[in-house]
Amino acid sequence: MEWTREKRYLPYDKWDALTLLKLQSQAARSDYQLHYHIRPSSGLLNDPNGFSYYNGRWQVFYQSYPFGAVHGLKSWVHLSSRDLVHWENLGEAVLPDTPLDSHGAYSGSAKAVGDKLFLMYTGNVRDENWVRHSYQIGAWMDEKGQVSKLPEALIKAPDHVTEHFRDPQILEHGGKYYAILGAQDKASKSGKISLYRAEQLTGPWEDLGYVDLPDMGYMVECPNLVFVSGKPVFIFCPQGLDKNVADYQNVYPNMYWAGESFDFDMGHFETKQKAPVNLDEGFDVYASQAFNAPDGQAYLISWVGLPDMTYPSDSEGWANCLSQVKRLSLKHGRLVQKPVKAIKSLREAEEDFTGDLAFDAGAQSEIKLTVKRGQKGSLLLAADQAGQHGIKLRFKTGKHARLTVDRGECGQAVNADFGASRTVRLPAGEDLDLRIFMDHSLFEIFVNGGAAVITGRYFAPADQTFVKMDKGIDYRARTWRLKDM
Amino acid sequence: MEWTREKRYLPYDKWDALTLLKLQSQAARSDYQLHYHIRPSSGLLNDPNGFSYYNGRWQVFYQSYPFGAVHGLKSWVHLSSRDLVHWENLGEAVLPDTPLDSHGAYSGSAKAVGDKLFLMYTGNVRDENWVRHSYQIGAWMDEKGQVSKLPEALIKAPDHVTEHFRDPQILEHGGKYYAILGAQDKASKSGKISLYRAEQLTGPWEDLGYVDLPDMGYMVECPNLVFVSGKPVFIFCPQGLDKNVADYQNVYPNMYWAGESFDFDMGHFETKQKAPVNLDEGFDVYASQAFNAPDGQAYLISWVGLPDMTYPSDSEGWANCLSQVKRLSLKHGRLVQKPVKAIKSLREAEEDFTGDLAFDAGAQSEIKLTVKRGQKGSLLLAADQAGQHGIKLRFKTGKHARLTVDRGECGQAVNADFGASRTVRLPAGEDLDLRIFMDHSLFEIFVNGGAAVITGRYFAPADQTFVKMDKGIDYRARTWRLKDM
Repeated sequence: MEWTREKRYLPYDKWDALTLLKLQSQAARSDYQLHYHIRPSSGLLNDPNGFSYYNGRWQVFYQSYPFGAVHGLKSWVHLSSRDLVHWENLGEAVLPDTPLDSHGAYSGSAKAVGDKLFLMYTGNVRDENWVRHSYQIGAWMDEKGQVSKLPEALIKAPDHVTEHFRDPQILEHGGKYYAILGAQDKASKSGKISLYRAEQLTGPWEDLGYVDLPDMGYMVECPNLVFVSGKPVFIFCPQGLDKNVADYQNVYPNMYWAGESFDFDMGHFETKQKAPVNLDEGFDVYASQAFNAPDGQAYLISWVGLPDMTYPSDSEGWANCLSQVKRLSLKHGRLVQKPVKAIKSLREAEEDFTGDLAFDAGAQSEIKLTVKRGQKGSLLLAADQAGQHGIKLRFKTGKHARLTVDRGECGQAVNADFGASRTVRLPAGEDLDLRIFMDHSLFEIFVNGGAAVITGRYFAPADQTFVKMDKGIDYRARTWRLKDM
Repeated sequence: MEWTREKRYLPYDKWDALTLLKLQSQAARSDYQLHYHIRPSSGLLNDPNGFSYYNGRWQVFYQSYPFGAVHGLKSWVHLSSRDLVHWENLGEAVLPDTPLDSHGAYSGSAKAVGDKLFLMYTGNVRDENWVRHSYQIGAWMDEKGQVSKLPEALIKAPDHVTEHFRDPQILEHGGKYYAILGAQDKASKSGKISLYRAEQLTGPWEDLGYVDLPDMGYMVECPNLVFVSGKPVFIFCPQGLDKNVADYQNVYPNMYWAGESFDFDMGHFETKQKAPVNLDEGFDVYASQAFNAPDGQAYLISWVGLPDMTYPSDSEGWANCLSQVKRLSLKHGRLVQKPVKAIKSLREAEEDFTGDLAFDAGAQSEIKLTVKRGQKGSLLLAADQAGQHGIKLRFKTGKHARLTVDRGECGQAVNADFGASRTVRLPAGEDLDLRIFMDHSLFEIFVNGGAAVITGRYFAPADQTFVKMDKGIDYRARTWRLKDM
């Protein structure tokens, strides 16, 4: 089947229900399917949207194209949770069904106000010449999940940006509302973060120009501003960023910039950080969304998937997932990401190890591992029973300490043009602490208490669930099987 | 929207996907929706099918009509579980897509054979004059969930039955295969259980006539034969049964008949039981399916829903659920039904009570309650905060001991023509033990260790989650909030 433009933008009511039912069943039965992460019911999942706390529960949405593993006509699927771990899929919430979002209800954010949840998102419209127009749309969701869209766009693209103007994040500060958006400046064709202000969420919204960060490649997607221990941190996805500015290996990186203060009205970001830093050191994180919750913490959730890439599950009609939720903190100006406490509620069948480390972890597992300082060796995850073909973690914990994760020998190749390994530097001569989560086709490796996170997909045969470490390594390990969420 | 015959039998590929997505979301968001029972993704759920153990997991299917709360064109939706409590919905498995099941893939059973699961079910066909033809169809399901139907019917309706001939259960005995089916005898128009035998599951199947039970009304649906502690027990749904034979209040009952032995080849059932007995003493149990598992136990799962009835959730486009799984035993010739042990894995937030019993149990709860002997009083479940409008349990534990469950004051009326209360007799002068499960719109009350089970639906406002007992009753109570499955 060829995914023509016409096919990808076919309205949902022109698809037949049998096709959808078969896609849903096929996705549910996949050996690669995630069991404790948010995954698409069918088709393609991309950006997390509307990550928020409302009506006594955590809320998140994902960008959905239900009819195949391609970027087609997008909508929002809604999930809610009591604990940031167990998510209930409530189905479609924002459909592309108005003249302002006829070619996609694209990414946006949410903010609880009174007894409603306010959504602000990008309506994507293509005109008869297939020229893109983007509208920033407001909508109210009630406790029943009913969404009422405002009839007029809250923000139309200003003259100083191109058609690349999207992904609004709503913020509240000093009794006013602000929104930041990813933008491409029309004059310079460079990536910017646009800033808007309003007295009311429903507008009028005033253009305050760009945040005074340096230009970021040719476009910035999915900007977020979150306060971590009172410090502003911008999280965003620069496209076409010069690798001399900041090193990255993925097609587009997801990066952050931590600062000292942010002047909402002037758009001035005060920072000592010289350049953006990778948010995730792995292969597949993009479009992360962060927000400051009523509990005072900052939480982050990521799309595990990249634009313009393909994945082996595409042939099964579904693609991608969301990461687990990560709690943010800062240490020496660097972002630290930790699993939320409730992730422990998934644990069962705890096991401790001594001697040679070689065991069947199962397809859903958590492994806590400390490799003592001054060693060199490797650990295989998702290996076969013979201890081969796994994801290889090579570590040095002496001088020139580093950790390399290589997925190149494990199952099917995944976007190999962008390299099969990723390396993070480690503090020299210290113990290495790893907290590793495996979920069928996803690994999330928290390094040294979340100082780095290495996230990636892998697509190996279902029986590749073995863990094996080089003999003679001095370590401590504890592992758990994890339940379905 | 009128549910014409044409509409109800519209092929799934003539429905549009948007309608299905909206129905799925609407069902997921319903305040009445079940959270730890098997429920339809959308539309109508009826009989459990193919309850079995295969590929290291428990398997069950349900009869599905995905497009509304009506009996339309049926398919099988598949779920599997590691523990009989946490079920994973794998979507559509058997679609009505051949000339032998063009008007519905109706009920049937499953048996693991080698590395495949064999399904035997009724293909429903209506000819151009809307005359019904039923075919008993065989199919192999593999570990990936792929279903391959055999091209020819295994059993065509014999001359001695009418078009009402369905719901095959596969059994294995003495190296041969047997099947029992619900039948209407053509000559007498009475309800019968037909018996077939084969050397191979794929046939040929030999008609052995009827099991020598008395005639049961005008039709028997969903016959099951299960061995409990070595004794044969028939479980079935007689339609039009004379209430002088066995008392029942629902439109059609689900009943059982326990015996001493069953001669598979002669169809002779040796029993001391004089008449069939209600399987469930409540309002809404039908089409239960039981099987003998590899662990030596007999397990039962029930449709909670009745033919020809309507429910308040119909207006939300979905209807019905399955019961929790019940483990069967026999005591003094009577069937005893107990929750499976793993149901305890749902428990959280345990609480014990003394003094007046009045508390908020939450919408998902388990309550263990002992009412001491020699008392009279009542207990309200799903009451409002003022302790009104609940499901009323009236008990007497002295002489003429009995328990009455009255749902007539609790929320919307449910098939009130068939009575709002059900009463079970209790042993005189003994403590009354209740184990009560609540799941938003479902109650399951296990009386005296499962000697009786009282199951029913109720449709009250979402905040009616309070429990209240008459003051001065001598009792012991412990309660748990229950997690989602």
